[in-house]
Amino acid sequence: MEEKDLSGKQKIEFAQARMPVLARAVEDSLSHHSLGGKKVAMTIHLEAKTAVLASYLKTLGADVYVAGSNTETTQDDVAQALAEQGVNVFAKHGCTQQEQEKFLRNLVVHEPDFIIDDGGDLVALLDNYPEFRAKVLGGCEETTTGVTRLKAREKEGSLHFPMIAVNDSPMKKLFDNCFGTGQSTMDGILRTTNMKVCGKNFVVAGYGHCGKGIAMRARGLGANVIVTEVNPVKAYQAMQEGYRVMPMMQACLIGDFFVTATGDINVIDNRHFGSLKDGAILCNAGHFDVEVHMDQLRRYASSHREVRKNIEEFVLPSKKKIFVLAQGKLVNLAAADGHPIEIMDLSFSLQFLSVLYLATSYGKMEKKLYPVPPQVDRYVAKAALSADGVKIDTLTSEQEKYLQSM
Amino acid sequence: MEEKDLSGKQKIEFAQARMPVLARAVEDSLSHHSLGGKKVAMTIHLEAKTAVLASYLKTLGADVYVAGSNTETTQDDVAQALAEQGVNVFAKHGCTQQEQEKFLRNLVVHEPDFIIDDGGDLVALLDNYPEFRAKVLGGCEETTTGVTRLKAREKEGSLHFPMIAVNDSPMKKLFDNCFGTGQSTMDGILRTTNMKVCGKNFVVAGYGHCGKGIAMRARGLGANVIVTEVNPVKAYQAMQEGYRVMPMMQACLIGDFFVTATGDINVIDNRHFGSLKDGAILCNAGHFDVEVHMDQLRRYASSHREVRKNIEEFVLPSKKKIFVLAQGKLVNLAAADGHPIEIMDLSFSLQFLSVLYLATSYGKMEKKLYPVPPQVDRYVAKAALSADGVKIDTLTSEQEKYLQSM
Amino acid sequence: MEEKDLSGKQKIEFAQARMPVLARAVEDSLSHHSLGGKKVAMTIHLEAKTAVLASYLKTLGADVYVAGSNTETTQDDVAQALAEQGVNVFAKHGCTQQEQEKFLRNLVVHEPDFIIDDGGDLVALLDNYPEFRAKVLGGCEETTTGVTRLKAREKEGSLHFPMIAVNDSPMKKLFDNCFGTGQSTMDGILRTTNMKVCGKNFVVAGYGHCGKGIAMRARGLGANVIVTEVNPVKAYQAMQEGYRVMPMMQACLIGDFFVTATGDINVIDNRHFGSLKDGAILCNAGHFDVEVHMDQLRRYASSHREVRKNIEEFVLPSKKKIFVLAQGKLVNLAAADGHPIEIMDLSFSLQFLSVLYLATSYGKMEKKLYPVPPQVDRYVAKAALSADGVKIDTLTSEQEKYLQSM
Amino acid sequence: MEEKDLSGKQKIEFAQARMPVLARAVEDSLSHHSLGGKKVAMTIHLEAKTAVLASYLKTLGADVYVAGSNTETTQDDVAQALAEQGVNVFAKHGCTQQEQEKFLRNLVVHEPDFIIDDGGDLVALLDNYPEFRAKVLGGCEETTTGVTRLKAREKEGSLHFPMIAVNDSPMKKLFDNCFGTGQSTMDGILRTTNMKVCGKNFVVAGYGHCGKGIAMRARGLGANVIVTEVNPVKAYQAMQEGYRVMPMMQACLIGDFFVTATGDINVIDNRHFGSLKDGAILCNAGHFDVEVHMDQLRRYASSHREVRKNIEEFVLPSKKKIFVLAQGKLVNLAAADGHPIEIMDLSFSLQFLSVLYLATSYGKMEKKLYPVPPQVDRYVAKAALSADGVKIDTLTSEQEKYLQSM
Repeated sequence: MEEKDLSGKQKIEFAQARMPVLARAVEDSLSHHSLGGKKVAMTIHLEAKTAVLASYLKTLGADVYVAGSNTETTQDDVAQALAEQGVNVFAKHGCTQQEQEKFLRNLVVHEPDFIIDDGGDLVALLDNYPEFRAKVLGGCEETTTGVTRLKAREKEGSLHFPMIAVNDSPMKKLFDNCFGTGQSTMDGILRTTNMKVCGKNFVVAGYGHCGKGIAMRARGLGANVIVTEVNPVKAYQAMQEGYRVMPMMQACLIGDFFVTATGDINVIDNRHFGSLKDGAILCNAGHFDVEVHMDQLRRYASSHREVRKNIEEFVLPSKKKIFVLAQGKLVNLAAADGHPIEIMDLSFSLQFLSVLYLATSYGKMEKKLYPVPPQVDRYVAKAALSADGVKIDTLTSEQEKYLQSM
Repeated sequence: MEEKDLSGKQKIEFAQARMPVLARAVEDSLSHHSLGGKKVAMTIHLEAKTAVLASYLKTLGADVYVAGSNTETTQDDVAQALAEQGVNVFAKHGCTQQEQEKFLRNLVVHEPDFIIDDGGDLVALLDNYPEFRAKVLGGCEETTTGVTRLKAREKEGSLHFPMIAVNDSPMKKLFDNCFGTGQSTMDGILRTTNMKVCGKNFVVAGYGHCGKGIAMRARGLGANVIVTEVNPVKAYQAMQEGYRVMPMMQACLIGDFFVTATGDINVIDNRHFGSLKDGAILCNAGHFDVEVHMDQLRRYASSHREVRKNIEEFVLPSKKKIFVLAQGKLVNLAAADGHPIEIMDLSFSLQFLSVLYLATSYGKMEKKLYPVPPQVDRYVAKAALSADGVKIDTLTSEQEKYLQSM
Repeated sequence: MEEKDLSGKQKIEFAQARMPVLARAVEDSLSHHSLGGKKVAMTIHLEAKTAVLASYLKTLGADVYVAGSNTETTQDDVAQALAEQGVNVFAKHGCTQQEQEKFLRNLVVHEPDFIIDDGGDLVALLDNYPEFRAKVLGGCEETTTGVTRLKAREKEGSLHFPMIAVNDSPMKKLFDNCFGTGQSTMDGILRTTNMKVCGKNFVVAGYGHCGKGIAMRARGLGANVIVTEVNPVKAYQAMQEGYRVMPMMQACLIGDFFVTATGDINVIDNRHFGSLKDGAILCNAGHFDVEVHMDQLRRYASSHREVRKNIEEFVLPSKKKIFVLAQGKLVNLAAADGHPIEIMDLSFSLQFLSVLYLATSYGKMEKKLYPVPPQVDRYVAKAALSADGVKIDTLTSEQEKYLQSM
Repeated sequence: MEEKDLSGKQKIEFAQARMPVLARAVEDSLSHHSLGGKKVAMTIHLEAKTAVLASYLKTLGADVYVAGSNTETTQDDVAQALAEQGVNVFAKHGCTQQEQEKFLRNLVVHEPDFIIDDGGDLVALLDNYPEFRAKVLGGCEETTTGVTRLKAREKEGSLHFPMIAVNDSPMKKLFDNCFGTGQSTMDGILRTTNMKVCGKNFVVAGYGHCGKGIAMRARGLGANVIVTEVNPVKAYQAMQEGYRVMPMMQACLIGDFFVTATGDINVIDNRHFGSLKDGAILCNAGHFDVEVHMDQLRRYASSHREVRKNIEEFVLPSKKKIFVLAQGKLVNLAAADGHPIEIMDLSFSLQFLSVLYLATSYGKMEKKLYPVPPQVDRYVAKAALSADGVKIDTLTSEQEKYLQSM
């Protein structure tokens, strides 16, 4: 969601003030860490929160290169404010696909030492530039999809430098994927539709971390939640949480809202469109715009048009109308402002500290996928509690001894 | 929230398609009711949902006169589309206070037979025009505040025509005040701040229907909710619902978000500002911009400025910064799109059927405040269930007899 | 549930320590109220909590006469301990119906000044003793059913002394009927069946205060709750709370647990038994054992036997087995210990203060049904908050003035 | 909780009818698996649910030897019914510690091929009988504590046969530890105290799977839940779920109920007793009776006595009274009936299938700790869904291909 009336600088400041964990990590690092002389390349949705991360990496002395991660999500005023801070920015809202590809290449050709990747795009692109790839000392990956790809690479031996799977850290997975996606998805749906959620049949496809978060928040807003799954263990869990579980074909007959969060393709497609209720609302919070099969829908529908900002109406051959939000793209990013600031504070603190860890340890690391070091997770959790003024217990020596003796 | 990219006509159509109860009420009424030759004057927040009501009153044959209910909430494209349907519209987004007053006078001087009032403004204005007031056959009132005023008038004998307290109907109170305010308030907060709600101390001032709805939804989004109250019965109820209850002075020390919904003034004022935490977010969902004492805050603060759309930052003498959403106005209207469409479908069905009831029955009614006739409430509930395809039980004759015999 | 190993005295002490509101009310009353020379007759489920009320009435100087309210719920050790305190007790666990009737007559023939009735039985019995009825100065009624009956009497002119509808007080209705029934019903089901509630289809018949409480707690234990109703407004409310709503016939096909709370007869009867799933659990939390039609079930079943304490198995002609808890009697009383102590603290404080109010005011009262005086409700709410150490706000004079001026 | 009025046989039948997953596993196994000629030794809380498992192992042809797992939890009528089915039972309610040790030795000296252990006791005992230990082909462990011990053994090389960590399977951990402990702990508290939970400060010590389940259910009953933790990641998670998090010392000042579920000692001890509120209720749902330091409490208190079944009152030097349920033992087992039947159906199905897996595969297994084979987890999940009539989706070949290609 673009906002023109305020400057990028103000937006960055507003976000920065709500990212105390990252601020603390920077402060604690300054005395004994430096990224001086190192180049960090990152591809991100360029808006206020990500700008804060880029800016702090520069604070630690790095040369920072930023490219937007797709053609639509860059906020130009933020990009400009970031550039004014001396970060090298390659991004433009509404750029063409060709421009976007050029932006990413710009990162690569600057020969980064460290990369911060989002979905595996930078790693993939580096395959075309073996000479630059050879110079990369390590990187971090933010998403489930990206980590899945890296695991495949590790297995087939095509990982050429150490990568840290930031996505898999508890402090990322529990909060970003679940709580972050949950809140921001509902935000996107509420602001886009102005429709009532309570009392509605709300179908969540996929009960991984993202699906759990969405189901929890939809219920929190009063919906009657239905979960669809392919994994029986997850399906049974959803059921014990009090949700109804059924196949998508059956859910289609009664669902008012549908959110896909499976990480797979064709979750709602030609098999289902004809069975949907008149007025059904479809959107996606999981993966690119392939979970709802938009191409099939466009061909299946007699006509379609935008009827409200970010809402496209599809008239089906049966005359029933169904509605898709944000063209099937990630509804929380394309129709809202993405994850809450404080959630990104955690995720970006993990990114920041992982880059520092790489900078210290890359010499000892193999061409493998590494977890976030546990001490980093604990550091972030402790700083987050502390930022909220929350204290916790510590084990007595007796208690520690007992645990070890068991 | 103004949206410029789509026509008012489309917006009205989108809303209308989600108001099946009102559509059904209109359809069922057409054969045996008419408002032909009658003038209906209404003051409303002029956006898509209210336009649907105005339009349907015209369908029943009435001459309809509409004025926006304040200077900020009119959507000009909707106003224009409504005017094109032959409704007489007096409203302009961003008009001056003087223009606004003139708009209301325009309603009065057209000598309405029936009025639909919002907060008691039209009834009050009519006092200046006794000759027109004498011609009014009856009216409806939508809000708690308006009904409170009407009760005072009834008591002191200054009610000059029958009024129906639509606000007090179960189908209004339970859903509009509680569920409607709950969802739309959280919508306003989410989209305006992009801040995390879960894990935050979320203070709700007032535990009436509105406060209950907000508390319920804030908890549904993961917040740790604190309720402040002056009524011990309500306070005790909030506590049994699992919320913390404490005086506002104490809540100030720990609250991250504050929403006022008391219907009274100065709920957060000079007594409290200095005790708020750095970064606290204040907003109002209850009553005009007097619940958070904005005048005192502006004087108390060293400086203030807008830092994000609808967010004003106040720097206090202590250097702490606190933030007010939507200038202390109703955050769900001023920073979001108001109640969900389906909620207004219920409330406006009650309004519509109450006007029809007045049109049939005004001759037999006194200068009193009347409840919505119970059969209207039941009609609306049944139509709402039916619109969602939900069936319910009916008593057997044996069961009815038993109930009567007890 | 009988417990033999501890003395009634200890049980009474344990309950008394958890009834701070009643203790406070007694303490505050002693200096300026007395029931000296007055006879108070009460019919109650005679267990520790009710014994505390009886005992305190004696503390205020009354001669107290207590009869158990049915043949099964008296705890003999408590009855004995109460008798030892000088209260006149007529009650025996497992007495015959004839003995029970005699116990009630014992109350009447002692010519009570004030009565505390439960379900209207004492008021009904007094019709047979017009000479004693004429001496009754007033009474209180605890239940919804009793109040319904009293309203009928008031209408037809057969109410012979003032009665206070304790049941209708907010501090009773909100907490006793809703929260009390909710917790104790689930307690009864859990301890009786040892069955999992989460993930089960849990059908609640009736969405009044009791049904709401049960639905809320069943969901709180992870169940997927289905509500059946005959009133469309209540049905729509249940739906907006996120429950499924459907006719009982449909619920029978999928329900795992059924709880009736309608206050009517034959909620589950011959129409439904054949449609129940194998293994379905039926119980009642609303009204006598007539909500589930036990007589029909006994005739319909091929055989029945007790299979676990308080669980009766019915083998249907189809060979399916269904199970009824506590013979269809109130599951929270017959298979658990009734409402939580602190809930009865509120209800009995209302009873106690209502009797004192009657003692002061009966001379000015008519033969009508009165609400609990609002100051009593507020007193109880304040004392309850205070007992938990909770403070609330008070209106400033400015705020009071504003409210009055509106 | 002992029930004398019904025969053990009926109790076993009632449980068996609610264990469809295990029944299905047995049925599916009979054609191609046999335990004929094998001896299975198990130590368990001997009541109806565990009897069903023992009985089914016999159905597969095994010689089954059962010992109760402590001196208190055996139900004698169930033990007798099981013995009548030809299972070798060594257990007696209220036996001495010496008898109990003898019972366990009886298992060992019968030279079992497979063991089902609970907390690691059998494995430990076998160290005294190296000749019998050498004959054990493998075993399963049910609890977190037991698995912790096995891990230590594996590390130090003192594991002498393959063990399967049933506890760590998702179908065990998610449901038994979390949902099972949650429901049964609240059951124990409700039936023992008859106290109100809603509106109370409910302190849960430890936010592992058990703690999560308890916190979730306490909230579901209306409590205001406070979590104490030593792990910052878990603490932060509890906070984001909307609970308050604080050190135990602070929680003591405000808590009404305390449940420990940490798996460590001295969670509530002399540091805390003096700070507790008058009337505080303490209990344990985690680990033996060492989480609440009972010895210290008994010494600290001026006096103590039983005041209600399973409730012990401790008068502190300050005259405050605090109350401990079930002597600090597992409140869900000692004061209720343990996990719900359907939960044990899952856990015991995992046990049963793990024993069959061992019987087939022990030859290829090392002296290590193994996870439950993933196909067993999926089998149990599918059978559980199927038992409830729930169907789920399956991936299309296109979807499978896409997942693999990522």
